[in-house]
Amino acid sequence: MATREGLFFDNSNSVLQRGLPCQGAIKPLTNNTDERVEFDVIIVGAGYAGLTACRDVCTAGEYWRGSRSAILINRAAGFSVLLLEARDRIGGRTFTTEVDGHLYEMGGTWVHWNQPHTYREMSRYGLTDLLPSHDRTFGLDSCTVHLNGKTRNVSHETAHAMTEKAFRLMCDVDGELGRSVIPYPHDPHFNPEAKYWEALSVAQRLDQIRTQISDDEAAILQARLSSIYGADMDKAGFFDMLRWWALGGYTMDGLYETGDDFKLPDGQSSFARHFFDETVGTQKLIYCFDTVVQSVHDNGRAVCVNDKWRAERLICTMPLNVLCDVKFEPGLSAQKLQAMKGGNINQGAKVHLEVSGSGHRSWSSAIYPVSRACSMSGDGLTPAGNTHLVCFGSNKEFTSPEDDARSFAADCKHVQEIDILKTIWHDWAKDPFAKGSWCMYPPDFSFKYLATLQERAGNVLFANSDWASGWRGYIDGAIERGTLAARDVATELRTSRCTAG
Amino acid sequence: MATREGLFFDNSNSVLQRGLPCQGAIKPLTNNTDERVEFDVIIVGAGYAGLTACRDVCTAGEYWRGSRSAILINRAAGFSVLLLEARDRIGGRTFTTEVDGHLYEMGGTWVHWNQPHTYREMSRYGLTDLLPSHDRTFGLDSCTVHLNGKTRNVSHETAHAMTEKAFRLMCDVDGELGRSVIPYPHDPHFNPEAKYWEALSVAQRLDQIRTQISDDEAAILQARLSSIYGADMDKAGFFDMLRWWALGGYTMDGLYETGDDFKLPDGQSSFARHFFDETVGTQKLIYCFDTVVQSVHDNGRAVCVNDKWRAERLICTMPLNVLCDVKFEPGLSAQKLQAMKGGNINQGAKVHLEVSGSGHRSWSSAIYPVSRACSMSGDGLTPAGNTHLVCFGSNKEFTSPEDDARSFAADCKHVQEIDILKTIWHDWAKDPFAKGSWCMYPPDFSFKYLATLQERAGNVLFANSDWASGWRGYIDGAIERGTLAARDVATELRTSRCTAG
Repeated sequence: MATREGLFFDNSNSVLQRGLPCQGAIKPLTNNTDERVEFDVIIVGAGYAGLTACRDVCTAGEYWRGSRSAILINRAAGFSVLLLEARDRIGGRTFTTEVDGHLYEMGGTWVHWNQPHTYREMSRYGLTDLLPSHDRTFGLDSCTVHLNGKTRNVSHETAHAMTEKAFRLMCDVDGELGRSVIPYPHDPHFNPEAKYWEALSVAQRLDQIRTQISDDEAAILQARLSSIYGADMDKAGFFDMLRWWALGGYTMDGLYETGDDFKLPDGQSSFARHFFDETVGTQKLIYCFDTVVQSVHDNGRAVCVNDKWRAERLICTMPLNVLCDVKFEPGLSAQKLQAMKGGNINQGAKVHLEVSGSGHRSWSSAIYPVSRACSMSGDGLTPAGNTHLVCFGSNKEFTSPEDDARSFAADCKHVQEIDILKTIWHDWAKDPFAKGSWCMYPPDFSFKYLATLQERAGNVLFANSDWASGWRGYIDGAIERGTLAARDVATELRTSRCTAG
Repeated sequence: MATREGLFFDNSNSVLQRGLPCQGAIKPLTNNTDERVEFDVIIVGAGYAGLTACRDVCTAGEYWRGSRSAILINRAAGFSVLLLEARDRIGGRTFTTEVDGHLYEMGGTWVHWNQPHTYREMSRYGLTDLLPSHDRTFGLDSCTVHLNGKTRNVSHETAHAMTEKAFRLMCDVDGELGRSVIPYPHDPHFNPEAKYWEALSVAQRLDQIRTQISDDEAAILQARLSSIYGADMDKAGFFDMLRWWALGGYTMDGLYETGDDFKLPDGQSSFARHFFDETVGTQKLIYCFDTVVQSVHDNGRAVCVNDKWRAERLICTMPLNVLCDVKFEPGLSAQKLQAMKGGNINQGAKVHLEVSGSGHRSWSSAIYPVSRACSMSGDGLTPAGNTHLVCFGSNKEFTSPEDDARSFAADCKHVQEIDILKTIWHDWAKDPFAKGSWCMYPPDFSFKYLATLQERAGNVLFANSDWASGWRGYIDGAIERGTLAARDVATELRTSRCTAG
């Protein structure tokens, strides 16, 4: 199976291939052979939020738990669901490709036991074996830093100490490492005084601590932050960094452990397939891939999509930056429309390189100021014995895929003598169904818009990791939102039928 | 509703009351009005492991997901379950009582977003609002330490710094705060070299660091460890502490945040009811409370309990220390019998006090060496405006409940002038269905017996937090085990029916 998404540049002959093998590709694209148009629920988007919502709605139909007085109703059939997805695959901003026997994660990758929604699902599907990304046992076990125009090779420990000092100073906003500002990171507004920090950009916060760190410490910190935000420091909201820090247990080691250490051995597409296959197994799911949603019309009793499909409720799981491409009738609230304008600032690039030999398996790199690449790190060995490097960088100038590959390669070769064989990536910034990577907010956004983004509009519910309460921008946040939307929809449909019947 | 469990001592008139109001009490005790004896699955025990297993088996019956070739079978009916429970309530080693309008948690209490199984279920049931136990805004905002025979009052910050220094030294076994020894705390044997640390008692580990800490630092650390282990330091396996430390993100603040900070506003019994009510709602559950399981006979095709009830599979969720009270036929393996001997060393006591006035709401205390109490801490304000103190201590001598209350009161009054109005607790050490509190292992146990305890015996599966892989001894570990057992059972029954049909 293959998806039309993803790019493969063969550095040896400069040939570009579009489309990659992917277990998440769905063939045939639809199972709606009867051209059915009426459903209980329509779900738009087959990323983790949509997949979770589909599964939970399809398996939720059996009973109804009311108040303490417990009116129990046995329903033999669950709810029927239509899943509409613009892509030819499941997974949204995650998908895994296999090239020459090695797995590459094109989007969301790392998982952790402190991501409760993700880990619980992994556990339920028997997928708790983890594959560490890092391995310190190969050749060049060190970090090349290219900071403020100078390149040098330092030990991982030195690079870690430089980054950690600067990171801690940045996040220690209260002398308690941020604990008093964000005491409950799954409810980031738990302490209303956090609003002060939410108004700052990262650039402004860096100004506050600048005299306490050296030029190189400031540069290596910004290399890391560039990879985290995929945006310039003046566009980046500091609060999102503080939230990640709090979610990671108020330490940098915790932060990187939760976001950069452990992969699923069989890949994200395999994980996503468990959700999809379980849902298909209920025989309550109709799906249409390759199907772009253009209009959603809610007449107060039912929702109609593309003037074609109807349901009592719709769960829209489209990402923040593409919501504006749908025509909603009635129109969304002014506040919601405002929130939809550029909420996700992350236009960062993620690129995989296969480089000759195993010598760079334990190597990493940090670069600042950023032209294309800001970080590179050994992420595995291919069956051919070569190193798999994962790189993050910027997408400031939209170039051709060939130029993308060449400019990344140039940046990497500039700091380290490597022989690049292959370049494999997906351009999330140019992707019309993503328009960006994992969600990071600008300054002064979360307190103003998070609640708005989580709000429903009549019979339309919105569920995406881009407005999760906990691990926003992570797979965990997608599952969080999908679960809650499915629960609300199932509860309402049970109640309305109970009242009606 | 009331359970016969729990003790209430009125300190003003020395009157003892047995049995307390509890939302988890089930009336009538059974819904098996037809005296049904044949079921798909029997589940023994209605703690979180049993409740989770019940719910998952009762809701699991609809479909079957096989290998990639996806043989899908639609089953109209799910699996029928018989739940047998010795107590008159759900919740196992957790239950909440309400006395004069205030909730007291008699057993397991605190929850955290880094407990994936617990938090995901909280999220699913809409229970993510949390109630902090600690409040620093009242009267005596300090800590009374009674260490090595001397009492003094210090700031919370001083007590924290003393404990943290000693705790960190104890757990920094590798210069990486334990990260290299337990890199993946949900798989504690991930690094086989951890076995070295597993063989040590806490007393032995303390000897290794003793010269680096003062007498008072050693004493306050042991006060904390006494409350964690409910056992003497030479009986306590050091590895379990290191595991908690790793689960808490390799910091003491993380450890206490995950285990001691946030409560469910409506209490554990309310949380447990969500599982139970959801399962009852499927109409696939028959339950019998007040029912002690004495014998389990597995003839290879079916399991028979108490020579009365039969099922294809049995999930036994009884705690480690009471497994030996059941006669299994065929007998359990020698290795399993060995593991069942005193695996849970925790005989600690947890006692709630209501004391006059709000002055002690922000107060805490640490006592070592321990006679009865080793820690006290403000945990809330009652509607009458009094302080709710939660105390931990030892149960070395089994005394009468009246003596229990008086000896705890004497210890507390010895370190602080308090006017105790009420004492509320449950004696988990004397409880015949628990024989101890949350599970803590002796030295040299986990590498030897954990896998054995997780093993099934024919058609009998064992699921209890006492042998969880992750948060062992926590509610999270119970849900972890319940989920896995239910998944295995449901998969097997689907497969066998698929083959048979």
